[in-house]
Amino acid sequence: MRFIPTGIAPLAATAADTALASQLQHILDHKTKPLGALGQIETLALRLGCMQRSQTIALTAPQVVVFAADHGIAAEGVSAYPQAVTQQMVANMLAGGAAVNVLARQHGFALTVVDAGVAAELPAHPSLLNRKIALGTGNACRTQAMTAEQGSAAVKTGMDIVSSLPGNVLALGEMGIGNTSSAALIFALLTGTAIEEAAGRGTGLNDAQMQTKLQALRKAQQRHAAAQTPLDVLCAVGGLEIAMMVGAMLQAAHERRTVLVDGFIASTAALVAHALEPHALDYMVFCHVGAERGHRALLAHLGAQPLLDLGLRLGEGSGALLAWPLLQSAACLLNEMASFESAGVDQKV
Amino acid sequence: MRFIPTGIAPLAATAADTALASQLQHILDHKTKPLGALGQIETLALRLGCMQRSQTIALTAPQVVVFAADHGIAAEGVSAYPQAVTQQMVANMLAGGAAVNVLARQHGFALTVVDAGVAAELPAHPSLLNRKIALGTGNACRTQAMTAEQGSAAVKTGMDIVSSLPGNVLALGEMGIGNTSSAALIFALLTGTAIEEAAGRGTGLNDAQMQTKLQALRKAQQRHAAAQTPLDVLCAVGGLEIAMMVGAMLQAAHERRTVLVDGFIASTAALVAHALEPHALDYMVFCHVGAERGHRALLAHLGAQPLLDLGLRLGEGSGALLAWPLLQSAACLLNEMASFESAGVDQKV
Repeated sequence: MRFIPTGIAPLAATAADTALASQLQHILDHKTKPLGALGQIETLALRLGCMQRSQTIALTAPQVVVFAADHGIAAEGVSAYPQAVTQQMVANMLAGGAAVNVLARQHGFALTVVDAGVAAELPAHPSLLNRKIALGTGNACRTQAMTAEQGSAAVKTGMDIVSSLPGNVLALGEMGIGNTSSAALIFALLTGTAIEEAAGRGTGLNDAQMQTKLQALRKAQQRHAAAQTPLDVLCAVGGLEIAMMVGAMLQAAHERRTVLVDGFIASTAALVAHALEPHALDYMVFCHVGAERGHRALLAHLGAQPLLDLGLRLGEGSGALLAWPLLQSAACLLNEMASFESAGVDQKV
Repeated sequence: MRFIPTGIAPLAATAADTALASQLQHILDHKTKPLGALGQIETLALRLGCMQRSQTIALTAPQVVVFAADHGIAAEGVSAYPQAVTQQMVANMLAGGAAVNVLARQHGFALTVVDAGVAAELPAHPSLLNRKIALGTGNACRTQAMTAEQGSAAVKTGMDIVSSLPGNVLALGEMGIGNTSSAALIFALLTGTAIEEAAGRGTGLNDAQMQTKLQALRKAQQRHAAAQTPLDVLCAVGGLEIAMMVGAMLQAAHERRTVLVDGFIASTAALVAHALEPHALDYMVFCHVGAERGHRALLAHLGAQPLLDLGLRLGEGSGALLAWPLLQSAACLLNEMASFESAGVDQKV
């Protein structure tokens, strides 16, 4: 797709970038604490400084965008909840009652809910962006989830939405009954991971339901085994909300925004974005490893070190927002802690 | 010690407590999310509700108290930093430049720094509580770290400090060159853990220095092998800051305050508090498992499930404050999320 930004700069693109990374490491090493004693928070501070090309970090106007869409594969009985829950949860988010609302309020995130492809016409609402590409995807067990045109349009829409938003921090969430199935298929097809390793119990399948899900996923996997490129895979088995997240991640990285990646489904969008533009990963913070089977393996595949490990499996961006204060802490510690020199504290003997 | 509060109520002391726990679980299970999808955050919300004996959670006037003291065993070369760093870091905290200051400002915690036993007379400062019991402890390789009177006075002082503070949330931190040695000895003597499993590299020992530390710890362990009761062990090898944290934890639990436990050293105070009053543990939230060897094993011994796992090893209460927003999230989610009924969302098929 020609519209995909090709200008995503790796964090160490230039000599100046490399010099900055050294300076940041020097600053962190001279803060009044033992070397490396703040662990992953220090790594995070270094990465954020590099993303912002600055020795101080300013996190501004944080946004959370939740993309909602339905999945044709839900017809195979892959979810514990009826498909209508997608639109009901969109309504819940617009009314302020979902987990993402609570956490967005707690942390001062602006929330945008996007109808990427819910299988119903939704009433207009000031907080709802109607960017519906289709009334849900096709059932990947029988057909393409998306046509190439739909897939491209969804990615492009995700890019445009990010362009239109302020700030330099973007948390991405999703809502869509059936979307752990689409995510597991993307993961399996793009990486060769066995479907049994890629797929989990989603919203809470029992053993029999899980067998039904695996059967459907194997069928879809076989049907689309020939899908080659990341976009082929995305269109064959992906969801409209996943495709929009791919676009959103690429655009955010292009603009050097920090992307907060949530759970398993958002992580498969990161996998596709990374396959399209490897350096997109440089701008992502993987906020947690969740309880959904496959998430840990997917993060390992990406070489990502998540911040939280709390057994979450909700989506909506909830895990991203739970981890957010750690980014703020990293910024504050880099910006505000005294150095050994400035505080008159002795260093190692 | 007769002054230790004996009225610490377990969270399930009465039929009303048990009924409340069931009500809280029911409320959590009917929030608009799959059952258990918020993982440890739900467990945390349930516990906080039980601590506060309420179906809603109100976290008020959060306090962080940092206890500073020196350790006679530092003379054995067990730390990478000179002993003077204890008082220098106290000065840094009073000037606002330490990690705990940055995080306390970020999260709106009131900070109290306590001189529990720094090996120097410290200049008065409005934010410093002078509760010095001694100019550091005795060297546990050669003598008792504290007399029984000093140990009792330190525990009592920790209790009194908590009594005098407002709010229902208490984060406890420490600063003391050599205190990972005292903590490792407490852990080893109280639980029978091998000293090699209990002791870590502290502020960053190299291999040779680590051998020196282990040698000193073995010597102290042998000298005090006969110490039987938790208080015997505390006085034999403990630190004045650890003893004050023990008292602070007991008093906080007695008042049904939530205690945020930081790293390895604070966790050994929790171990002693638990040994004195098992139900004190009911009021503790173990905020992280750190990089110091022994911490993971100590938490497993206590059956504690930490919130964060970020390779931290700073102390000062820093890990407690990094985890704090997760408690706020747990409270907000319990208090504010819609239920399936109120939001009109379908439940499982």
